[in-house]
This record gives sequence, structure tokens and C-alpha cells, in this order.
Amino acid sequence: MNNSVIRFILLYVVGFLGLFLMLPLFVAFIYHESVWIYYAAVALPCLIIGIINSYCKPKSFSFYLKEGFFCTGASWVVLSVIGAIPLWLTGEIPHYIDALFESVSGFTTTGASILYDVETLSHASLFWRSFTHLVGGMGVLVFLLTVIPLAGGDGSQFNLMKAESPGPSVGKLVPKLKNTAQMLYLIYLGLCALEIILLLIAGMTPFEAINTGIATAGTGGFGIYSSSIGGFNVACQWIVAIFMFIFGVNFNFYYYVLFHHARDAFRMEEVRMYTFLTLISIGIITVNTLSCSAGLFDALTKAAFQVTSIQSSTGFSTTDFNLWPQTSRCVLVLLMFIGACAGSTGGGIKVSRFVLMGKAVHKELISYIHPRSVRKTLMDGKPVTHDTVRSNNVFFGTFMLVFFVSIFVLSFENIDFSTVFTAVIATMSNIGPGLSMVGPAANFAFFTDLSKIVLIFDMLAGRLELFPILMLFHPNIWTDLFTKRRRKELTNAGKCFKD
Amino acid sequence: MNNSVIRFILLYVVGFLGLFLMLPLFVAFIYHESVWIYYAAVALPCLIIGIINSYCKPKSFSFYLKEGFFCTGASWVVLSVIGAIPLWLTGEIPHYIDALFESVSGFTTTGASILYDVETLSHASLFWRSFTHLVGGMGVLVFLLTVIPLAGGDGSQFNLMKAESPGPSVGKLVPKLKNTAQMLYLIYLGLCALEIILLLIAGMTPFEAINTGIATAGTGGFGIYSSSIGGFNVACQWIVAIFMFIFGVNFNFYYYVLFHHARDAFRMEEVRMYTFLTLISIGIITVNTLSCSAGLFDALTKAAFQVTSIQSSTGFSTTDFNLWPQTSRCVLVLLMFIGACAGSTGGGIKVSRFVLMGKAVHKELISYIHPRSVRKTLMDGKPVTHDTVRSNNVFFGTFMLVFFVSIFVLSFENIDFSTVFTAVIATMSNIGPGLSMVGPAANFAFFTDLSKIVLIFDMLAGRLELFPILMLFHPNIWTDLFTKRRRKELTNAGKCFKD
Repeated sequence: MNNSVIRFILLYVVGFLGLFLMLPLFVAFIYHESVWIYYAAVALPCLIIGIINSYCKPKSFSFYLKEGFFCTGASWVVLSVIGAIPLWLTGEIPHYIDALFESVSGFTTTGASILYDVETLSHASLFWRSFTHLVGGMGVLVFLLTVIPLAGGDGSQFNLMKAESPGPSVGKLVPKLKNTAQMLYLIYLGLCALEIILLLIAGMTPFEAINTGIATAGTGGFGIYSSSIGGFNVACQWIVAIFMFIFGVNFNFYYYVLFHHARDAFRMEEVRMYTFLTLISIGIITVNTLSCSAGLFDALTKAAFQVTSIQSSTGFSTTDFNLWPQTSRCVLVLLMFIGACAGSTGGGIKVSRFVLMGKAVHKELISYIHPRSVRKTLMDGKPVTHDTVRSNNVFFGTFMLVFFVSIFVLSFENIDFSTVFTAVIATMSNIGPGLSMVGPAANFAFFTDLSKIVLIFDMLAGRLELFPILMLFHPNIWTDLFTKRRRKELTNAGKCFKD
Repeated sequence: MNNSVIRFILLYVVGFLGLFLMLPLFVAFIYHESVWIYYAAVALPCLIIGIINSYCKPKSFSFYLKEGFFCTGASWVVLSVIGAIPLWLTGEIPHYIDALFESVSGFTTTGASILYDVETLSHASLFWRSFTHLVGGMGVLVFLLTVIPLAGGDGSQFNLMKAESPGPSVGKLVPKLKNTAQMLYLIYLGLCALEIILLLIAGMTPFEAINTGIATAGTGGFGIYSSSIGGFNVACQWIVAIFMFIFGVNFNFYYYVLFHHARDAFRMEEVRMYTFLTLISIGIITVNTLSCSAGLFDALTKAAFQVTSIQSSTGFSTTDFNLWPQTSRCVLVLLMFIGACAGSTGGGIKVSRFVLMGKAVHKELISYIHPRSVRKTLMDGKPVTHDTVRSNNVFFGTFMLVFFVSIFVLSFENIDFSTVFTAVIATMSNIGPGLSMVGPAANFAFFTDLSKIVLIFDMLAGRLELFPILMLFHPNIWTDLFTKRRRKELTNAGKCFKD
């Protein structure tokens, strides 16, 4: 392992975290809140570490898949662990594990909270919670790609992006990967800005609009009120619903649309399926909840909001869907598993994985009917490599294994099956609320620390698509790291001081 | 497709079903029950069809995987549809879909019932229900292999056995497949006889012992009392528990033990994992239910019975585990997914599939850490082919897809999530009872016909490991069947009458 480049990237992340923490500091000044001191106390050391680090460039930038995955897993852990400190220091979340849960929930864009009453938080902390969604939504390392002077070329950068991007495969939109990452961030921030403007027009205050906008962009789901989006007018609700849908679409779609490949865009099987699932779910739930709503439009508004919220893995709510009829609840649980599109900011297993799995199953069936036929699996008209299909299949299995083990550990809580089941899927798919005791009107505070740690693991594993996080638990990676470290570290330290 | 051999095998199955139906007829005579007439009314035509069929041998016995899978799927449908008729004719189950549910539940060794009060059934019908477990446990086509004059050689027979045997791969124990099938049946019936004798010694009446014995052997679960095994003494309960465990073990284990490969037997990873899971689950549940039991031995007895019952997918019960604490209920739900060993009479995804999946996940992780390493996946010290691993992965995905679609359809029932979820898994894994409204003290009668049909499909799909049943829904198989049929049928019909 190239330890020096790992150290460099991890500390680079710390430095950027310091920069990010300046934002809630700034919010605290605006609202004259005394919590600024805690944000400053964390931001400053981070900034200093980042600045020193930028002078200690690693000798070699060679960077393989292993380093990419390890860096990704480790950066997210570092990010969450440090990001939780201000929430804990301010005393707003007195227990550190709770603060860590909240921080991980933010960065992984889950939006599951341990807070009973969000309104008691300072503006600075509310903003920090929402802002973690924006950082986590597109991926912090993808962000680094847009600015970092990683000299390793596309190969190195690709390994980073592959580890952090949601979905079964990563495509380059433009020849240079750095430009692809910049393009994605441009679309991301552009859409986010558009939503904020629309929300302002619809009647939100700037603070509400910015928080809601960035939490939607990351498909996060932390609200600044206990009623989530339920307290806003219908116009705001529809804007948020539509943008939740938008942020759950594969970003390649927007790239194609913007740069004159509109035909390719509308041919994307995943986006079609995603749209189909959204519409059919809204239809079913509207009909099913008609009797408990104030008319058709009300039922449609609530159904559209909740469906786009769950499917895009955002987790905002305008009504307590835990009180809905069972049919609607079941549809939502199924959507929790499916999730959003690959290459979006959303979570879940991803629509494209289900489409690919459907094709694999069909191919398997055909192989029994015509054993000698050789068929290529096609996606959007292009052949899918065997390796992608295999990875996809293994992903499903891994997801199930992690899911079952988590349920097993949580079952020691002695709470009902629906709660345990939906708590695990709501965290693994980075949604936020589940059913029963973790429904949209409830929170995750009642879990024991052990369960919270399992759920923290599930959120990270879900966001990073399992392997970068599972890898951190494999002994080989640590022996690799430590056996080569001694010699390398000495040389690097020497080099650093020489500079 | 070789339609003539398919017709031959399907009608052969009908003939054997006629023979099997003579048994409840015989029971009706013993107990002077008037229902004999209905059993005779179904048995006789079946027998006549079977006898005529045996004179119309197909011209060619060539038999490929496609025919094997189709035959298997179709035979099980034919078996269930005809096997339901006597239950319906006697008036004991007045609605045909209910009778079909009961019959499918019997043949697939599920043991889920739509009856409120089992005690009202005649002895003949009770025996018929239990006997379907015995037939379905080992597989009706595997049974045919032991007696049928299929001249196609091992290749043809292997295709039949592959389609019907549970587990990721089929091995031959002895050079000739026919002898393997005979050997398996010998072990099967031998163990069953041993259990019946022990139950007689422990105090059951012959009728009770025979019914319980054959229902255990097939890991079925239809009881002859509403209290299932709860009404019998503790000795009987332990005997049944131990035999449920025994019938969930891969039968190769017994072959190895009996024929001096004892070392190989105890090396089988699947059997070790199965034993480990059983013991750990018993341990957890004993501790967890201690407070609601009459002492440690009572808790242990109940835990051991319920765990072996669920894990082997039998579905007998001695207590209403739906009333157990949540931890125990969660453990049982996880066991429902895992199921028994491959090559046993039990259902579920199978322990070996989980072991293989665990290895695939580990291999995937290693491939990120050491991308250039080439590793073979080993099972019991032997390398597993890529094809088996791929099939296994696809199986997991298919299982999930069928599972989710079933839950989706059942969600229209407007009943709680636990019920829907466990009803689907309890039928797909061929267990029987689930939780909540389908708990061991309840039954499946309240479902609508649509849901019952979905659950019938799930039972068949689960028992035949998905593909033989899914295949019946693929249009290609029907076009194959019908386009070639016209010409062939004419020639065959001519040939048949000439004979």
C-alpha cells in the first residue's frame, strides 16, 4: 500500500472539513449564537492540519483500487468522527455516540435522527446538519477530484471515484475524469441553487430555503422542524417533491440532456424504470389513502411527496405514513429496497441493479431453455461486461448478508419486527425514517449504543456500497498497512522535513 | 422439445398418484369412513391413465435440461391439482382453491394450512395430507428414477434430478444415478421407519406415529391435531425435534457415514454450519424465553423444538412462538431464510448457499485488496466451478425478486407487514407457520384467492428452487412446445395406436 498518499488524502479531507466548518461558524455569527466557539475549536485545528499537510506531498502518487477503496472508507469514518465533535461540544447532543450517529446520518445523506426536538438546536448546528448532506450527497472524494492536485492521472482518480460513486459501474462523461467530476458538481450545485430560488419564491425564508435545498440536493432528509416539510405550504411541498425526484435520477441523464444527447438521455432504461416505479407507486398510494385524506388532490400531494422522498432515499415527510393503510406502507418498504438511480445522490440498492438482476434472471432462465445459446446482457443498448454482472450479483448477496446480520444484532433490543426490519433498511438505504417505532414522527434515540453502532455501520456501508467499509474490517488491509509502514514512514518523514 | 417423453413422464406421474391415492382409500376402509368413495373416484381414473400410458412408450428417450426442468415444474403442478380433488370432493375443504392450497402445501412439504380445525377431518384425509409430505420430501421424480424404465441413460436422469433436488449442485454418490436415487430413498425411508418405531415406544398410537413420522421425514409439518405436537409428551417432542434436525441434514452425510467415509462426512462445511446455527439459536432462544417458561428444561425443550422445526422447514410447533419475546421471533425469521442443508428434504435458501455466498463476498473483498490474485473458491476442500458460484449468486437475486413481487401483491390485503412478510417467507421456504396472523396458532384461510394463488406459486417455486416453476411462465417454452407439437403428436399418436 502507498501509505504516504493515503495519509495525504486523509489529511486533505481533514483540511477541507475545517473549511466546511467555517460555514456554521459564519451562520452562528449571523444569528449571534454563542456556539461559534465550539465550531471554531474544531475548524481551526483541522485547517492547520490541512495546511501543513499540503506542504508534505507524497513522493509517489501511484494509487490502486486497494488504496482507493481504503481511502474512501477511511475518509468517511474520519469525516464523521470529526464532524460529530461540534454537535457534541455544544451540548446539544450530550452523548458522543448520539452525535456520531447524527453526523454519520448527515454525511451518508440518511437523515435518521436521534433528536426528539429539532427546534431546540442552534441555527449553526441546524445548518451544519443540512450541510453534511450536501457534502455527502455527491461524495467528498469526488469533490476532492475537482480541486486536488492528484498527479496520478486518470487511473488513480478513477479508483477513487469508483469507490465512492453509487451504482454498479462508473462511466466517464468526458475524456478527462477531473472534468467529469467538475461537470457533475456543476449540475449538482446548479440544480440545488434552482431549488432554493424556487422555494424562496414559494414563500420560505432564506434560512429555510437554503437548508431544505441542500438537504434535498444530497437526498438527505434532515429537516429544521420536527414536522419536517409538513408545516410548509403545498407549493413548497410540490417543489421539494419534484426536486427529490430530480436528485434521484442518474446525473448522466442531465449531462446528456444539457449537451445535446437528449435522445440517449430518454433511452436510459434505469431512468425509465425509476420514473415508472415512481408513478405507479404514487398511483397505488393515492387510491389507497383516498379515504383518509381531504380529497383527491390532498391524497395525491401526500402520496407524491412520500413516494419521491422514500424512493430517492431523502426521507423528508409531510405526513406520518406510519399511520397509512398497510398496502401503502408495504409499497414504501419495497421502495426502500429499490432506492434511486445509480449515479444520483440517492441510496438504496439502486434501480439499475434491479434491472440488471432482472436481466440476469432472464438470462439464467433462457440458459435452461436454450442451453447452447450465448447471449450478451444489454443495458441501454450496450453490452454489459461479465464482471459487472458478477459484481452486481455479489452485491445483492452481500447486501442480504449485512442486512441479516444487522437484524440479528438489533433483535436483541426486544422490539417489534417491523421496527427492527425497517430501521435496518432505512439506514442501509440511507433513507431515514422507517415504520413503527422509527416512523417519520419518531426517532432513533431509544436504541442501545450497540444497536446505534450497527446502524452507523449500516449507513456507511449503504452509502459507500458495502465494499469500501467492509474492507476496513479485513485483516489483510491492516497487515498491508502496517508491515510496509515502518520503512516508508521514515523516508516520507525525512522528505517532508527536507521540503 | 421432446414432447412425447414429456407426455410419457407426466402421465407416469398421474399413474403413480393413482397408486398413492390407494393408501388413504385403505385408511378409510380401516376406519369405516365413507370418504373412500371420493378417493376411489380419483384414484381409479389416474391408475387407468397410468396403465394405458405405460403401453405408449415414447419413440425417443432423449432428454435435455429443458425437458427436465419443464417436466419437473409441470409434474408438480399436475400432482397438486389432482391431489387436491379428493379433499375438495369429500366436502372437508369446500372451496377448490383452498383444497389446492392444502395439496400444494402438502406436496411442497410446507405444512401451511387453511383449516381452522384439523380434528374434523376424516382419518383418510389426515393421512393423505401427511402422505403428500412423504412424496414431496424426496421428490416425486427422484422417486420415479428409482423405478421408471427411462432408457436415456444417466444424462437424461441427471437432468431430472438436477431440477428437483434442493441445493446449488447435485452430486452422484455412486457411479449410476439410478443407484444414487435408490440409495437416497433407502436412507430416507429407513430413517422415517426408525422415527415411527421410536414414537410408538414413546407412547403415540400407530396412526399418530405414522402420520407424525412421515410428516417429519418430508419436513412437512401438517399435524393431525390443532395443537400440532404440543399435546404429546416430552419424550415424543424430543424425538420429533431430533428427527427434524436429522432430516434437515444433507443426505450425503448419512451416505458417507454408512459407507465408511465418516471422515468426509464430518468435514462437510454445510453440515457443520447447520449444526452450529441450530445450537446457537437454541442457546439464544432458551435464554431469551427463560422468563416465560417453567424452568430451564422447559425453555430448552421448547427452544430446541421450535428451532429445529423452523430451520429444517418442518413447521411443527409445541408452543405459540408468535407470543415469544421479539429477540426469539427475529432469530426464527432469520432461520426461515437460511433453511436446511442442500440435499435434504428441507427448504429455505439452504445453508450451503449462504456459505457459498459468504465465500463469494470474501473473494470479492480480496479482489479489491489484491486485484491480481487468482483464487479458487473451495467447498469441503474441493474447488467450486465458476458456473456454480454464478448460479448461486443469481439464485439469491431471483429469490429476492420473487420475494418482493409476492410481498407487493399480498400488500393489497391491507394486513400488517409482519404477517405479509412472514407469510411469504414461510411459504417460499416451505416452512408453514409465520408470525402474527399466520403464526403457529393461526392459519392461512383469511387470505383472498389472489393471495392464495401467489402463495401457492411461492410454495412451488420455493420447493423446486425457483427456475423449474418460473420457466413455466416463459413464453419460449410454450412456443417450443406447441410449434413442434403438431407434427410430433401426429406421429406419436399413430405410433401409440400401432402398439
